[in-house]
Amino acid sequence: MIEPKILKGFRDFGPEDEIARQTMFTQVRGVFESYGFLPMATPALEYKEILTGKYGEDEKLIYSFKDNGERDVALRYDLTVPFARFIAMNQKQMTFPFKRYQIAPVWRADKPQKGRFREFYQCDVDVVLGASPVSDAEVMACICKALEAVGVKNYELRLNDRSVFDLLLSIYQEQGSPEAEAQELMRAVDKFSKIGADGVLKILEDKQITDAGKKFAQMLMDLGQNQQAIERIEANISADSLPIKNVKELLRLLDLQGVPKEKVVFDPLIVRGLDYYTGFVFEVVLKDNPDFGSIAGGGRYDNLVDQFSKDSLPAVGGSIGIDRLYDAMKEAGQLSHPALVKAIVLYLEENMLEDYVSLASELRAGGVNTEMYYFPTKLDKQFKYAENRNIEYAVIMGETEKQSGVVKVKNLKERKEQEIKKGDLVKFFKSA
Amino acid sequence: MIEPKILKGFRDFGPEDEIARQTMFTQVRGVFESYGFLPMATPALEYKEILTGKYGEDEKLIYSFKDNGERDVALRYDLTVPFARFIAMNQKQMTFPFKRYQIAPVWRADKPQKGRFREFYQCDVDVVLGASPVSDAEVMACICKALEAVGVKNYELRLNDRSVFDLLLSIYQEQGSPEAEAQELMRAVDKFSKIGADGVLKILEDKQITDAGKKFAQMLMDLGQNQQAIERIEANISADSLPIKNVKELLRLLDLQGVPKEKVVFDPLIVRGLDYYTGFVFEVVLKDNPDFGSIAGGGRYDNLVDQFSKDSLPAVGGSIGIDRLYDAMKEAGQLSHPALVKAIVLYLEENMLEDYVSLASELRAGGVNTEMYYFPTKLDKQFKYAENRNIEYAVIMGETEKQSGVVKVKNLKERKEQEIKKGDLVKFFKSA
Repeated sequence: MIEPKILKGFRDFGPEDEIARQTMFTQVRGVFESYGFLPMATPALEYKEILTGKYGEDEKLIYSFKDNGERDVALRYDLTVPFARFIAMNQKQMTFPFKRYQIAPVWRADKPQKGRFREFYQCDVDVVLGASPVSDAEVMACICKALEAVGVKNYELRLNDRSVFDLLLSIYQEQGSPEAEAQELMRAVDKFSKIGADGVLKILEDKQITDAGKKFAQMLMDLGQNQQAIERIEANISADSLPIKNVKELLRLLDLQGVPKEKVVFDPLIVRGLDYYTGFVFEVVLKDNPDFGSIAGGGRYDNLVDQFSKDSLPAVGGSIGIDRLYDAMKEAGQLSHPALVKAIVLYLEENMLEDYVSLASELRAGGVNTEMYYFPTKLDKQFKYAENRNIEYAVIMGETEKQSGVVKVKNLKERKEQEIKKGDLVKFFKSA
Repeated sequence: MIEPKILKGFRDFGPEDEIARQTMFTQVRGVFESYGFLPMATPALEYKEILTGKYGEDEKLIYSFKDNGERDVALRYDLTVPFARFIAMNQKQMTFPFKRYQIAPVWRADKPQKGRFREFYQCDVDVVLGASPVSDAEVMACICKALEAVGVKNYELRLNDRSVFDLLLSIYQEQGSPEAEAQELMRAVDKFSKIGADGVLKILEDKQITDAGKKFAQMLMDLGQNQQAIERIEANISADSLPIKNVKELLRLLDLQGVPKEKVVFDPLIVRGLDYYTGFVFEVVLKDNPDFGSIAGGGRYDNLVDQFSKDSLPAVGGSIGIDRLYDAMKEAGQLSHPALVKAIVLYLEENMLEDYVSLASELRAGGVNTEMYYFPTKLDKQFKYAENRNIEYAVIMGETEKQSGVVKVKNLKERKEQEIKKGDLVKFFKSA
């Protein structure tokens, strides 16, 4: 016997869990399509060189190996980089702006922990060519509406533009902070909301950042959020500066698209970990459950496709981490588990197999999801089975019913029974 | 620049293709659920030892590697073995009979050719515990109905019971054919429909099968199909023999479940390649397109779960190879490409951005899939974009329309335009 076991960081989803998850996928897909994003798919495996050099220090988490033909291959680490590869390969036949969505698993050899898995689903929307605050705001609004459709109420959308950081850095550089520290500074301040100012300063200490760099980081952390941050930034720069105008336009467009103002935060410290972002970035957190970290995020990546193409193809995208969200909602008892099977035809009389099979077939042909029990065992056992499977109605037909052309229908939740003419059964279930 | 390329045997699906594929998945899922199968999911990666020793000579096609923790892992080769592993791990909490479906990709390092990919989707239904001709017939009927839902008309369901082979072999063994040749004989005659009797005999020659073995194979090939085969087998064995009674019961139950008799063939040569089948087996082929080989198959595997468990958990399942079917239908021009986006709000006046964004948001909130164009470019270009994206209607609103509270709606297929009150737009699209 081989011991049945599953790899750490990977999960099975039994029917109850999978129905809840599929319900979430359907809700997300519905919102994505409502914004005009169309589905697309890329493979799980890519040439390794397609993925490397895009993710920064996390690149070490890519699952890579040599395939049977000695090719260096890798499991996709996200949906964005393979999508960029697809765009570069197919741009000649495509219509731009190109809007697509993709819902698919990705793999990361990360340390498994709460809300962090080695296999997890991303739900992505992206727009290629169409660079404007309108598409940027649309991506964010679409992600927020998808979260709302899934049932998330108390979320916060945090956004920033990396060029705000660059702009401030350029001013600050004159005071001596080397540009070489920019990446380290960016990554450190991004952690502010989780670890606070002391935590950030400790990282800078460890990384041996210059005093000028530390002063810059402190200034950033003192900016605050929203209007206050905007005013403090504007006090330092020309009021016409594009980055801050852009942020203000994003806030206006989000409001127009029905994302409630009180859920949106401009936070100049948000930069997101991935190397490929170039402009605005955003993340969404659950206010009731900050432990889970960000459950969605994204931003503008204007140079990623260019790594595979001679043409410039700026893009923007957003992604929901559905597994983390699933766990958060499961923990809060917020998952929905619709009953998929309407009826079960019970197997009462051994010699009536033909009748049961035919009846079940008729119901299915009429659009009613119907099981039939396989054996003429005790009715108690059959009822118990039906309840465990979350089936709504049992259909009971013995010799007596057969003779009179009726069946008994039992509502398994309310435990009420009624007689229905056989010919009316489909109609009954359709309206039940 | 990194050359954008994709691995051989792997495919991207752009929106047009993916919409057609998703439509197929939805149709298949609908039928699976109509039979009371519930969704389930297992991970893409498994411990390698879970997969090995189950697939016969094709085991060499498994993608396996060492992960970052030096574990031997493998990409799933089918959905059945990981499912068996799941059952063994979770049987204590489960309700039996257990019926599940799963639609997910599998990976095989096969030689890419027509209808054969290294990544492809399987659509599986399985029943664990519930061993009876009723569940066996249900699995086959469900697979056939799913194919019909997708649009397959001219298919043939070929079925057999491996114990028919065993029974005949046991008679024949008395005449000297060694049981050691059973596997080779089974695999060879299974190819009869593709390569004919001469082809089969050549394989037996190459494998140095004994004369008794060859005689046995010849007898099998002479059995024919359907009623003729049944009669010839019954002439050799006791009429009460279970295997042939079982085949007759399957044929009867398929008929009762609405699988047309003329589409069903009993063929005593069908054994299917996989090692884990134990009883009845089946496959489905496209009669108009036999080149594609079998597009669905399955059978009873009563000992597979036992490899992971001390308990005996007999099971039966069927699987549709959707990528092969997709290709066959694409070749035949039978794919359906429903329009997913109902409307596009055009961007006419630069200063009316707010109006366009609000209008698009209203339509979406009303349940109408709606794009908005991102730039106030020439209308020609916007119309062309909408047509390329397969959008049904353009919504046109300039200063004049805004003043009078109406919009122009243009049907992009029929090229007809009409005026609609802004407040009636959702209603209009809902019924359009």
